[in-house]
Amino acid sequence: MDIQNLLEDIVGAVQPHIGQGSVANYIPQLGAVDAHQFGVSLVTRDGDVFSAGDAHVEFSIQSISKVFALALVLASDGDRIWKRVFREPSGNPFNSLVQLESEEGIPRNPFINAGAIVVTDRLLSLTGNAAHAVRDLMRQETGNAGVDTDHHVAGSELANGHRNASLAHFLASCGNLENPVDDVLDSYAKQCALAMTCEDLALATRFLASNGLGGDGTLLLSPAQTKRINAVMLTCGTYDAAGEFAYRVGLPGKSGVGGGIVAVVPNKCAISVWSPGLGRSGNSVAGVAALDEFTTRTGWSVF
Amino acid sequence: MDIQNLLEDIVGAVQPHIGQGSVANYIPQLGAVDAHQFGVSLVTRDGDVFSAGDAHVEFSIQSISKVFALALVLASDGDRIWKRVFREPSGNPFNSLVQLESEEGIPRNPFINAGAIVVTDRLLSLTGNAAHAVRDLMRQETGNAGVDTDHHVAGSELANGHRNASLAHFLASCGNLENPVDDVLDSYAKQCALAMTCEDLALATRFLASNGLGGDGTLLLSPAQTKRINAVMLTCGTYDAAGEFAYRVGLPGKSGVGGGIVAVVPNKCAISVWSPGLGRSGNSVAGVAALDEFTTRTGWSVF
Amino acid sequence: MDIQNLLEDIVGAVQPHIGQGSVANYIPQLGAVDAHQFGVSLVTRDGDVFSAGDAHVEFSIQSISKVFALALVLASDGDRIWKRVFREPSGNPFNSLVQLESEEGIPRNPFINAGAIVVTDRLLSLTGNAAHAVRDLMRQETGNAGVDTDHHVAGSELANGHRNASLAHFLASCGNLENPVDDVLDSYAKQCALAMTCEDLALATRFLASNGLGGDGTLLLSPAQTKRINAVMLTCGTYDAAGEFAYRVGLPGKSGVGGGIVAVVPNKCAISVWSPGLGRSGNSVAGVAALDEFTTRTGWSVF
Amino acid sequence: MDIQNLLEDIVGAVQPHIGQGSVANYIPQLGAVDAHQFGVSLVTRDGDVFSAGDAHVEFSIQSISKVFALALVLASDGDRIWKRVFREPSGNPFNSLVQLESEEGIPRNPFINAGAIVVTDRLLSLTGNAAHAVRDLMRQETGNAGVDTDHHVAGSELANGHRNASLAHFLASCGNLENPVDDVLDSYAKQCALAMTCEDLALATRFLASNGLGGDGTLLLSPAQTKRINAVMLTCGTYDAAGEFAYRVGLPGKSGVGGGIVAVVPNKCAISVWSPGLGRSGNSVAGVAALDEFTTRTGWSVF
Repeated sequence: MDIQNLLEDIVGAVQPHIGQGSVANYIPQLGAVDAHQFGVSLVTRDGDVFSAGDAHVEFSIQSISKVFALALVLASDGDRIWKRVFREPSGNPFNSLVQLESEEGIPRNPFINAGAIVVTDRLLSLTGNAAHAVRDLMRQETGNAGVDTDHHVAGSELANGHRNASLAHFLASCGNLENPVDDVLDSYAKQCALAMTCEDLALATRFLASNGLGGDGTLLLSPAQTKRINAVMLTCGTYDAAGEFAYRVGLPGKSGVGGGIVAVVPNKCAISVWSPGLGRSGNSVAGVAALDEFTTRTGWSVF
Repeated sequence: MDIQNLLEDIVGAVQPHIGQGSVANYIPQLGAVDAHQFGVSLVTRDGDVFSAGDAHVEFSIQSISKVFALALVLASDGDRIWKRVFREPSGNPFNSLVQLESEEGIPRNPFINAGAIVVTDRLLSLTGNAAHAVRDLMRQETGNAGVDTDHHVAGSELANGHRNASLAHFLASCGNLENPVDDVLDSYAKQCALAMTCEDLALATRFLASNGLGGDGTLLLSPAQTKRINAVMLTCGTYDAAGEFAYRVGLPGKSGVGGGIVAVVPNKCAISVWSPGLGRSGNSVAGVAALDEFTTRTGWSVF
Repeated sequence: MDIQNLLEDIVGAVQPHIGQGSVANYIPQLGAVDAHQFGVSLVTRDGDVFSAGDAHVEFSIQSISKVFALALVLASDGDRIWKRVFREPSGNPFNSLVQLESEEGIPRNPFINAGAIVVTDRLLSLTGNAAHAVRDLMRQETGNAGVDTDHHVAGSELANGHRNASLAHFLASCGNLENPVDDVLDSYAKQCALAMTCEDLALATRFLASNGLGGDGTLLLSPAQTKRINAVMLTCGTYDAAGEFAYRVGLPGKSGVGGGIVAVVPNKCAISVWSPGLGRSGNSVAGVAALDEFTTRTGWSVF
Repeated sequence: MDIQNLLEDIVGAVQPHIGQGSVANYIPQLGAVDAHQFGVSLVTRDGDVFSAGDAHVEFSIQSISKVFALALVLASDGDRIWKRVFREPSGNPFNSLVQLESEEGIPRNPFINAGAIVVTDRLLSLTGNAAHAVRDLMRQETGNAGVDTDHHVAGSELANGHRNASLAHFLASCGNLENPVDDVLDSYAKQCALAMTCEDLALATRFLASNGLGGDGTLLLSPAQTKRINAVMLTCGTYDAAGEFAYRVGLPGKSGVGGGIVAVVPNKCAISVWSPGLGRSGNSVAGVAALDEFTTRTGWSVF
């Protein structure tokens, strides 16, 4: 298969979708992004890199960071985190309080905001600086020492982050935070505000397509843990549209409100797409369309 | 009717209930209160005062303060507050987030915590110091310049107040707070931590039994507004047991987790009871029993 | 007070509201009613009768029948029914399944549909024919032997009654029905389809304004039970607008989707109003306005 | 790989789990089953059959039938069914009314009871006899003309099926049923009451492991539709434990309260397990343990 051609074709095929949907605008920094951009990158399990479109433009990875925080916690802490967060699809929007209340402070999964806050809380306890830990993993896997938090975005998230503050205080009221609420929220905002390109993101995701092997050959996660992160991505990775994503795309994936999505073809490759316009479920419209096209053309769904 | 005898009889009748239930212990200051206390006071519309039992022991009025904050806001701001809070019974526990989320940040009524936080926020805007405004109303109506916030209780509420912080941040995320979250929470904690005796509380409540006339003859509220506060107390004043309270007692009333309850016999009298042991709904067990006895003996229910 | 004049004045005052709202149209028989009608009747505790407007036009009493079914069950069975139905405001629409599920088949109160179905089930067990029992009470209190079920309405309700069937089967699945589902639904439809005039309805409601004394001087309910039905009406009688009704009208009341409302001034009078146009909460727009006018003019709210 | 040995090993490995959990007892016919049984069968994409343990004992397939009803509807009606049922994980128990109400009669997915009732309703419209259609597919794929509904089980389901009747009437009240409620429930009960062995079930599921090819080489479903059914099974196939199942087993699967589970290794094989003891989520305890063992040993998860 000529992957470079495939990616170019995808860029062509998704043109009608680019600019569809709405750019996240709950903070001004995200709202100012030009919607008419689309990038795609693919990194094979062996490390070959392919890119097309706006694959070298930085964007805010937002919720995609949750996958990497979870990987770091699982790597150093094992299954312990599952006492503090479930791993079931939520059936509710990503920042819902309802489920949290009815299940007494145990979030439904690590990819809704409440669950990700718990994971970040644990990562903070384990490392002393959760945002740096995620950033350093990104730098290591991409070989790009310039990967960093966009501090304007992080600051704006914090200033406008009443919904996350509400979740975090609720978690604290249930005894499900180890660190002070403000410290956890600060780490969480910085982790979400990492700015990366499609190509960097695909490189950083590669270990999930290679049984846990990092770019330099060290084992970041055991094969079993790697499969499990992929399982959680497939069932919970795209907010309240996980079923739809599994149906259309058929790959483990994780999206962010910055318009990025990473997906994994186990044992084959990691792929990342980016386009800022979001559909009603908070996933990039052109990004989902691109991944749909990708699996249709390659037949590389897990099903 | 010999009211003094009646109150003494009530003290006797509720003996079996004193000490039943559980003392609120989410903060140490409340948990340390001796459960084996019971007080009752009644102030007639004309200002005659009757007391029995531990009617001169101070306790933390907690949610009872919500009635007075609401009265102050209605008095100075009219019906405007009803754009920011409904006045329907909640059908849910007093600190529930579920309703708040499903109704997009408009609390169900001013006596659940979320609604009371909105009222305090408005009172803060109107007066610059919401807790002082409530305190000063208490001082004026009781003639007791010593009425004050217990700052140990207020401080402990704040330090342990993650649930209220969660509610307040959620309200802020919906645009339903005018002041900074921390300022509103500070005011709210101080207002709830007012320490008063049964007798003081009955004196302070008297205007709701006299068409809005305060102790010195000034009109605190219009007769129509007074009726309306009584209506909200009857339908929403006792957490998720408002129906039960209306059924057993048949009077507008407002309870607090400190074990106090105030009730109003319109055009006749205000009555306050206090005993720290709470039933499952958060209302004083002996207090509800006392008010049940009171209306059974006097026939003074509103029905 | 010249009550006849008062009622005439009310007819005049509510003219702007007559025809507002929407006529219930979930069955054709209700949808065909002319919206431009308004009637009002008042019966004093001593039996004096006053009427104005379309007070002698028959309409479908619908949910108002729930009050009378409850009265009959309480009269013959005492407090036993409260093991099968709560008496708390629902905070949800009248035909909601959510609450029923979360509280395992115990409806929130006897005036939401699920609760009324439980009451009718019990009345069916007690009398062998629940709809006749309610009808006979109506005939006795009105002296009108012609009061009867409109069988076209009842038949249409049953044919279109999937929502009530859903509730009844759910109750049965929780073990909270004594009789076969179809029998209970049949009785319930016939009871709701009673056709009566405002004047008949006010006469039938009089015992709730006279400590339980029926028109012929027999005690239908004890004074305590009478107060309690009034309490349940006040907190739960007007669907999800009970707080609003208490706030504006300040009387125990019960509405039906046929556009009727009965209200009680304890120890003074029963009043009924009717106008088919319903507001969003399912209560007659002109009817609520008329009762608001009534309590404003007379000062006869319970608060 | 020696599959026969593998299955024998699995029988040995799950011994400690056999008899754990509770046998479904909402109808007597299911409750009478001996819990100490376990069977496993595997059919390769090419049609080789392997079995171990109690693989030739018939059991009630219950919800597993939902997969086959959905396959038949998709095959003859295409994507039209997705207007009447979503395909998102529910985050709620399989017979929940809450979600149905909040989403106005569109069930969350075709594998919760409400969704399966909608699918059966459509299959009834398409075929005139939904239960026979499912049965005939089973007969065709297994080559076993004796596959049939256990009419004692079906009758008992209907007689005790108030929860499903409640769901069906609710769907009807929302206009989401094409056929009379009783006809749909009858079909649904008969389809769920099909009695089959592990081996039959694995044979019948084989087409989902072979891109839609049936046993005789005809295309039952297109490859794309086959992948999509697998995707829905993975995200929604095991009640409120889909995330857990994906995490532990990592295969598309569908369970039933009779204790059976089918799972699919795309392009490789179908596997069925059976043991009557159910865990809290309604999935066979020993069955899940067996599939966990299977994917751990073979590495054949989709991740």
